[in-house]
Amino acid sequence: MLPLVLRHSEIARYEGGKLYTLDRRRYPLEKKYYVMQSVKEVAIAIKNMVTQGGGPMELALHALLLAKDQGVSLSDAYEILSSSRPTNKSMANTLKEVIKKVEEGEDLGSLINSTLAAYDEAYDKMSDYGASLIKDGDGILTTCFAEHSFLLSLKKAMLDGKRVRVYVPETRPYLQGSRLTLPSLSQMGIEAYLITDGMPAFFMARGDINIYMTASDAILPDYSVSNKIGTLEHAIAASYYGIPYYPFSLKSSYNSDIKIEMRDEEEVLKVAGRYVTDSSLHALYPAFDIIPPCLIKGIITKDGVLKPFE
Amino acid sequence: MLPLVLRHSEIARYEGGKLYTLDRRRYPLEKKYYVMQSVKEVAIAIKNMVTQGGGPMELALHALLLAKDQGVSLSDAYEILSSSRPTNKSMANTLKEVIKKVEEGEDLGSLINSTLAAYDEAYDKMSDYGASLIKDGDGILTTCFAEHSFLLSLKKAMLDGKRVRVYVPETRPYLQGSRLTLPSLSQMGIEAYLITDGMPAFFMARGDINIYMTASDAILPDYSVSNKIGTLEHAIAASYYGIPYYPFSLKSSYNSDIKIEMRDEEEVLKVAGRYVTDSSLHALYPAFDIIPPCLIKGIITKDGVLKPFE
Repeated sequence: MLPLVLRHSEIARYEGGKLYTLDRRRYPLEKKYYVMQSVKEVAIAIKNMVTQGGGPMELALHALLLAKDQGVSLSDAYEILSSSRPTNKSMANTLKEVIKKVEEGEDLGSLINSTLAAYDEAYDKMSDYGASLIKDGDGILTTCFAEHSFLLSLKKAMLDGKRVRVYVPETRPYLQGSRLTLPSLSQMGIEAYLITDGMPAFFMARGDINIYMTASDAILPDYSVSNKIGTLEHAIAASYYGIPYYPFSLKSSYNSDIKIEMRDEEEVLKVAGRYVTDSSLHALYPAFDIIPPCLIKGIITKDGVLKPFE
Repeated sequence: MLPLVLRHSEIARYEGGKLYTLDRRRYPLEKKYYVMQSVKEVAIAIKNMVTQGGGPMELALHALLLAKDQGVSLSDAYEILSSSRPTNKSMANTLKEVIKKVEEGEDLGSLINSTLAAYDEAYDKMSDYGASLIKDGDGILTTCFAEHSFLLSLKKAMLDGKRVRVYVPETRPYLQGSRLTLPSLSQMGIEAYLITDGMPAFFMARGDINIYMTASDAILPDYSVSNKIGTLEHAIAASYYGIPYYPFSLKSSYNSDIKIEMRDEEEVLKVAGRYVTDSSLHALYPAFDIIPPCLIKGIITKDGVLKPFE
């Protein structure tokens, strides 16, 4: 049921002392595996966005197998891996929990499997709630790559006999919309159209979009959510046209120490690795938006649709 | 004072029986001139976006010189040129007026010069009004390439001692923001930052943007304006944060037959000529937005700032 990029075997495969992951930076133009032979190489891969979304957590868990086989202590592995993407708190927390249980005598391989199974179960529950919010004939806007919960919501809605149509903003600068969401929807047999990041309001004004759904990176104390840059513009446009916005969240608790990462301007001056303008000019690249609760209809969690602000 | 792409000599130069224009599709990565030897070749250049904005009108006027030297009738030239970009009514109207005057005995060369001089005078007046709306320290958002009126407004504001800072959305799919607006601002010594089309709301939320200014393609009977796709999303975000939006318009009369052109999906699937995703997937590309009057603070014309909706 899942598209290629979300299958466990493509995100992290440990084979013959090497760790393999589908290189999402080249996908779908190339289907190449990135090979890692040490915990440090895994940290570099995570830092360099070889995988993203839920990928780093899954890859980091498997890096513990590599550490164990190479005689690297799990606490050293934790330090190296958790510093690879400082804003990814859930990766760090999951690693910490698993390492604690290994130190208490549990088997690492079984723990990795049960951790991933728990995530899969959470995605399954979230997508039940997500599917229930989708109506027959809906035009659905997303942003970036909302992964399992979103894709499974659409698939379940379709299996319930609802026709759906998805509008996918390309999500510059990384183009996760073009490269990950669009091909994944296609692989799942879901009608989908790529648009640029400036187009959602056009389709809202025409009445073509009825619901807006994205992932979220964190929930803040006031129930704002943070998500990929661009999410806020579309949430404001959705609110203007009376279209409900639902972020998915794996957590029902909040994060109080959100810090917006300003990334390298080169990534905006370039598209797909090539400069599109004079390289001496300047750009700004805030990586995340914060969306205030007044723009959010509900947060879809594994325990139901949270509406703390109603 | 004007940046390279807006100088008359770069937009249309008729020399030795050939017409030259700076190829805006390659600029600023390459500074190449596109050469045309017949009216048909000029029409093809206009159709293929070799120049845009006010460029097609200026190029089409010079194509009349080519027609005259080659013994092509001006009415045939009119038909060929005006069908090259059916939505560009002002190009067609300007050609029609000039041809009428030539048939009444006036000199074509002088008419071209006086027509361009009238435009330059209109830009000069519009930019006086534009500059008056800018305050010291303003962060200014634009979209696409708003040409003379916008750039001169900024320059005049600076000459009045006001500090300005411009946020330039790249404006996918053609990247006019990256390729035309950003280098032009830099050439004029104006502080400017490239951002992606999903970022304006982020900077508005931080209080970094105080005013939003764009060109416009047409004014509709209800004083909506049409402009490049993306303009509407940013106008909605501006309205949400209480930031005034001012489109520039050369016309103070309205256009009743606006039709939104849906362009080739390939242009969204590709960036700078290369596919960024699987070429078998689908995209949508509406070329223009319509911005309703409730989102517009005033329309900047050569006769002043029009506020018909207050």
